[in-house]
Amino acid sequence: MGPVVALAGGVGAAKLLRGLVRVVPPEDLVVVGNTGDDFDFHGLHVSPDLDIVLYTLAGLVDETKGWGVKDDSFVCLQMLGELGFETWFNLGDKDLAVQIARTEMLKKGLTLSEACANLCRMLGVMIKLLPMSNEPVRTIVWSEDKHFEFQEYFVKRAAKDKVTGLTLEGSENAKPAPGILEAIASAESVVICPSNPFLSIGPILSVPGIRDSLKKTSAEVVAVSPIVGAKALKGPADMIMASLGLEVSAYGVAELYKDFLDRILIDNSDLVLKPRFAELNISVTITSTVMKRVEDAVALAVETIARSDQERFMR
Amino acid sequence: MGPVVALAGGVGAAKLLRGLVRVVPPEDLVVVGNTGDDFDFHGLHVSPDLDIVLYTLAGLVDETKGWGVKDDSFVCLQMLGELGFETWFNLGDKDLAVQIARTEMLKKGLTLSEACANLCRMLGVMIKLLPMSNEPVRTIVWSEDKHFEFQEYFVKRAAKDKVTGLTLEGSENAKPAPGILEAIASAESVVICPSNPFLSIGPILSVPGIRDSLKKTSAEVVAVSPIVGAKALKGPADMIMASLGLEVSAYGVAELYKDFLDRILIDNSDLVLKPRFAELNISVTITSTVMKRVEDAVALAVETIARSDQERFMR
Repeated sequence: MGPVVALAGGVGAAKLLRGLVRVVPPEDLVVVGNTGDDFDFHGLHVSPDLDIVLYTLAGLVDETKGWGVKDDSFVCLQMLGELGFETWFNLGDKDLAVQIARTEMLKKGLTLSEACANLCRMLGVMIKLLPMSNEPVRTIVWSEDKHFEFQEYFVKRAAKDKVTGLTLEGSENAKPAPGILEAIASAESVVICPSNPFLSIGPILSVPGIRDSLKKTSAEVVAVSPIVGAKALKGPADMIMASLGLEVSAYGVAELYKDFLDRILIDNSDLVLKPRFAELNISVTITSTVMKRVEDAVALAVETIARSDQERFMR
Repeated sequence: MGPVVALAGGVGAAKLLRGLVRVVPPEDLVVVGNTGDDFDFHGLHVSPDLDIVLYTLAGLVDETKGWGVKDDSFVCLQMLGELGFETWFNLGDKDLAVQIARTEMLKKGLTLSEACANLCRMLGVMIKLLPMSNEPVRTIVWSEDKHFEFQEYFVKRAAKDKVTGLTLEGSENAKPAPGILEAIASAESVVICPSNPFLSIGPILSVPGIRDSLKKTSAEVVAVSPIVGAKALKGPADMIMASLGLEVSAYGVAELYKDFLDRILIDNSDLVLKPRFAELNISVTITSTVMKRVEDAVALAVETIARSDQERFMR
């Protein structure tokens, strides 16, 4: 039986992954992480989405914020500020150690995949966490005639600009990281995590070959909607869908994935949307998609892989 | 009137500099720092000797240790250790910020001089701190048939190996950093700080042009002996002199500098050595060279520049 493959952004994905790791044996779980928001922080290669997943799976994440390392201090960042350097990206001292480690490995010639695998091993994370690509793909956010690097838009400017377009710089020359296409082709199921369809899942799908592999795989491709009602559970997905002229709903999300999606999990409160998915040929599971506690994540995870393997949870 | 130029290593030099900055106006003081012990710490360019001087002059130094930033924490380093990275070089979180800042500036194409000048400005240090060269010179320590990078010898192996030779890698292609030769040529006096003659002053003298400029300058060139009796006040200078077959004394130090040295300050306890310096044509000042308090450093600093400018202290 093939792996469960999860396409993941940051905080939203991490919530579901806390459940998936509890119902799928680690050797059967492959997480493909977004690197479109990777950036250079004073010479260090920072991979914010990969780190959120890494820290979550390592049990290190700051659960209140959903990112960063718990009980971290910010002494180095504060000193950088005193030196006059920009400090809008909140990297704690422990978090910085991971960035220093990753940057050193990349400098020594390791690929991002290899660096990521090493960090997983170092932090005792047993699932396979793959960056979407070892080549740089950078999400550029357009707001009318201005454009911003992703973290500038997202953190420095607090995601307040109206997004009128997105460019995924470098995606045309990127290749899926080793193992991704094979994992999807042989997967038992593919889970599109409840991450921002444009800022998190979009960059992954922009890597040539990944979207095609989702269309071709015999695995069920299941998405958990990040939109409940007309609101994103977190982040600017709703604002972006609206400003790009899309329907802000779980249905709007399904439309973005309709060429490869088999099933979508939508929230109980969106029951009214159910009949409309038939026209997209996408089946629907109505459930509680809001994950407050780990138990919620486990229940939701069971439902994402339930149709393909009712027994899995029991192993 | 020209500047006072000080050739400086780390902790020993910093002690005297605490005095010199109190008797020489900042715009008249030029410190030439050793970079032979610079090294790469997980991708960061660390300049231990420059930093000791920088932190001391900025009032940030950990006075107990003589290096590092006071009240620093070591959260990032500890996390690097948990990731399995080497942590024998004790970089605190604040200290790391300086290394990140310097490394970023170098990556952006600034020279080490420029990065150093910026760090001085950022930390409110008004004297001119110049690295000996913008080109890399690396001190390699030989112990019989083994050799070590400087920090490996000095910190990791705690300077315990018998030193049988030194190589200054890259020195033949290095140029003095901009301003050094001009400063020495126009100097009112040049002070060789009480630093290790081999590990701190030696690398500076190895940069082509610097030793010659000391021979040619009309300024008085004055050294403060780092050896009192047959002991180094700090560090392995005495062991190294012994293993290289030199006399372990202030006289042994003067011999190393005899081609350019005009005067040496030796400790009261070394009075017996005094007559011997005549044969080297080096004059001697007998004084207290052990600096416990800032007042000691001020008194010693006054004596280093006293002959050339009795009035200076009064300005």
